[in-house]
Amino acid sequence: MEQTMPSWLKKRAFLSPNRIAIKTMKEEITFKELFIKAEEIGKKLGALGIEKGRHVGILAHNSLDFVIFLHALLGIGAKVVFLNTKLTEKELSFQLENSKASILITDDELFKTSITGIQKASFSEVKKLEERNLSFQEEVSLSDVATIMYTSGTTGNPKGVVQTYGNHWWSATGSSLNLGLHDNDRWLLAVPLFHISGFSILMRSVIYGMTVILHEKFEAERVQHAIFHEGVTIISCVTAMLQKMLEHLHEPYPDTFRCLLLGGGPAPLPILEKCKEANIPVYQTYGMTETSSQIVTLSPEDALTKLGSAGKVLFPAQLKIKSENHQEVGEIVVKGPNVTKGYLYNEEATNKAIIDGWLHTGDMGYVDEDGYLYVLDRRSDLIISGGENVYPAEIESVLLSHPAVKEAGVTGQDDERWGKVPAAFLVVAHSIEESELKSFCQKRLASFKIPANFYFVDELTRNASNKLVRRKLFSLLEGQQNED
Amino acid sequence: MEQTMPSWLKKRAFLSPNRIAIKTMKEEITFKELFIKAEEIGKKLGALGIEKGRHVGILAHNSLDFVIFLHALLGIGAKVVFLNTKLTEKELSFQLENSKASILITDDELFKTSITGIQKASFSEVKKLEERNLSFQEEVSLSDVATIMYTSGTTGNPKGVVQTYGNHWWSATGSSLNLGLHDNDRWLLAVPLFHISGFSILMRSVIYGMTVILHEKFEAERVQHAIFHEGVTIISCVTAMLQKMLEHLHEPYPDTFRCLLLGGGPAPLPILEKCKEANIPVYQTYGMTETSSQIVTLSPEDALTKLGSAGKVLFPAQLKIKSENHQEVGEIVVKGPNVTKGYLYNEEATNKAIIDGWLHTGDMGYVDEDGYLYVLDRRSDLIISGGENVYPAEIESVLLSHPAVKEAGVTGQDDERWGKVPAAFLVVAHSIEESELKSFCQKRLASFKIPANFYFVDELTRNASNKLVRRKLFSLLEGQQNED
Repeated sequence: MEQTMPSWLKKRAFLSPNRIAIKTMKEEITFKELFIKAEEIGKKLGALGIEKGRHVGILAHNSLDFVIFLHALLGIGAKVVFLNTKLTEKELSFQLENSKASILITDDELFKTSITGIQKASFSEVKKLEERNLSFQEEVSLSDVATIMYTSGTTGNPKGVVQTYGNHWWSATGSSLNLGLHDNDRWLLAVPLFHISGFSILMRSVIYGMTVILHEKFEAERVQHAIFHEGVTIISCVTAMLQKMLEHLHEPYPDTFRCLLLGGGPAPLPILEKCKEANIPVYQTYGMTETSSQIVTLSPEDALTKLGSAGKVLFPAQLKIKSENHQEVGEIVVKGPNVTKGYLYNEEATNKAIIDGWLHTGDMGYVDEDGYLYVLDRRSDLIISGGENVYPAEIESVLLSHPAVKEAGVTGQDDERWGKVPAAFLVVAHSIEESELKSFCQKRLASFKIPANFYFVDELTRNASNKLVRRKLFSLLEGQQNED
Repeated sequence: MEQTMPSWLKKRAFLSPNRIAIKTMKEEITFKELFIKAEEIGKKLGALGIEKGRHVGILAHNSLDFVIFLHALLGIGAKVVFLNTKLTEKELSFQLENSKASILITDDELFKTSITGIQKASFSEVKKLEERNLSFQEEVSLSDVATIMYTSGTTGNPKGVVQTYGNHWWSATGSSLNLGLHDNDRWLLAVPLFHISGFSILMRSVIYGMTVILHEKFEAERVQHAIFHEGVTIISCVTAMLQKMLEHLHEPYPDTFRCLLLGGGPAPLPILEKCKEANIPVYQTYGMTETSSQIVTLSPEDALTKLGSAGKVLFPAQLKIKSENHQEVGEIVVKGPNVTKGYLYNEEATNKAIIDGWLHTGDMGYVDEDGYLYVLDRRSDLIISGGENVYPAEIESVLLSHPAVKEAGVTGQDDERWGKVPAAFLVVAHSIEESELKSFCQKRLASFKIPANFYFVDELTRNASNKLVRRKLFSLLEGQQNED
């Protein structure tokens, strides 16, 4: 028999009606109010013909309305297709078409996007509609699809990752078994809601009965203010965000702040040391859209002894390294109830990625003797230089430990002799000689890992969740004189 | 596809090897040590022919060995049939036969039980065996049966409640979503391990990575000591235990103690008031073997405003009142992933109890306008007096609010005129006139609810988990001169 549960927001509104669900700069809303508003919007969405099972695209910046519309869509049983606000119209059109979305809902600002060939409605337009008699679901089945999020491979078109209610449920409970669950928890959401890092916080909020402090976008000073003055206990961020927070830090974090959940790659030693000084407990994590957020986490007490590790795989999940020729390093494969069933309308990609229930992540890594995972790189980011495997993350970590280097990205560059050689892209605090960087690397890295070229840039190529996109680094030089 | 997870103890030993799993009066053991010992015992149990899928009876008092043997049996995939240490040999034989247990494992003390017709082995005997090459399960499926616990109906033979890994998992996570989960949590286990109230703590321990303080049996002074000096944060108990704890209390509980989970019926006002004074946060609960422990819980902040209520149904579960003629009071029916699939080899009882996925609890109750459940009584404890429904719990609650009354149990007594009338069994602090009790009741209860007789006894009839057994109250008078 299918495993059913009471519909989440409705149940949460019943259990904790007066607890604050969402707090923005301007307003706050209890779970009961959130449920009432979501139910109302759900009925208005019904007037557009949206009903159970429909695929509905949504394109919006972080806002309370976005939250309400998401709960409304889930509440009436629609399947939400999340769209990244940074996409071009061509990319948006591809995802809408590929997901067979029947309608696109946008916030008022993004309504101007000139996508054609699909019914569109803005938040304001929906609010003006008559309510249709459409009731919120009483139950959800854990195997029902809740959301679809597109991820880009390095080649080919993006694929729609199918996430069920069960995936989100297990992700939330797996996280709570690791991080604990306190009555006074308030999770700061300053990452995009359309990304799993943001949406998973929303799911935890409703499952835990926890307040979310919602920021429209990441601004270090506002984040700082929320941590010092608004009782934030947990925040999700990536290294680039943490760096900015450290730059704006004048005093140690209060003891009420108990967890900085850090995604998007291991943090370099200097940053971890600064965090320790500043009373910031860093939980490094590894996860992806396909695992409905974190699946591996490193506790603060292990941060310095297991430097560079992403930690241990969470309670409900399993992890293995699949290597050729019994090498230690291989592809990271994972399994668990938080792992996607596959890619939307793409059996081929699904069958390639999921074999016997194990998801092949495309990331390379190894597990040490205590069971800690070290993620080296995307398999596609791997640089093969003269037959040697060169992992960009390792070189970046060394570069980041240099005091002048604020951000570092390494990628492969064609080379006549070696096939590929590493090239480094750096954001620096003050100007520095290439020779000094080379000699710094020589003391710390084998010769074939030392970047052949150093490019100084204003910023690195990052995606909407601030993760480094190595394969696009060379695009930074377009329009510049090629220094190579 | 079946939902699988890594085998629980093995995974916990991997994640938190050095955390204390179990602490008894004499010793403590980490999760890694517990896993090693359980694996060793599992291999020795293998030498007895026990293997995956076998039903194995276990009869033991609370002890570290009991815990190790339980994990060993689960680890090798056996299904554990729990036996109550208070049962007669005839009752034990029935349950072993009914469950088709292939072997009975006992602690050394209970090995003397002269049960015949089944292979037997004591803990000591098993420890002396050679290990067989039998490995711990790598995974468990949530739909696999883990344990079987017998419950007595009021009529007929006991029925074996089938509990899956999923039932225990959802019970543990449902509880944590309600009570929170703190790094320093230590749950005091002073209820029987063979009962769901005890075994569920063991499951939480391994799922949460939480230390259990294990007592062989309930002794108020030892419990007090553990709360004041051993960092206990949570305890499970019933009202009779709580009363004894309050009698032994000399100062308020420390703030580290955050939850007293109280089962076995609502607590009377005077006790709740004493608890408030003594800084004891009481979470009243309602649950049963069929729901793998609590399914409804009342928070301390609601204890006085919702006096007599068991609270709201936990996040993953649902609850309804099934009443005839649209009356407010009716049978409590529940649904959720923590609810049993049914009774072992007893399709008839299963089909009677579980209809369309809803378990009919046999308990009577109602839900108020805010969704709080009030449990009145076992349907079978209901007294029908002159056509009126009389709920023993209501009368007991009134009697318990009298300062002289320490314990109260009410049941029906044959009456020529009314069919049945209520009779009260009391344990009193000092002697008191029946007339005073009658007049006390007259001010507080309708006349048909006033007990026709008051019997003063040394103790009430309680089961192994200290719950009042009303249908046996009259057995207390056997051998005494009948005062009726």
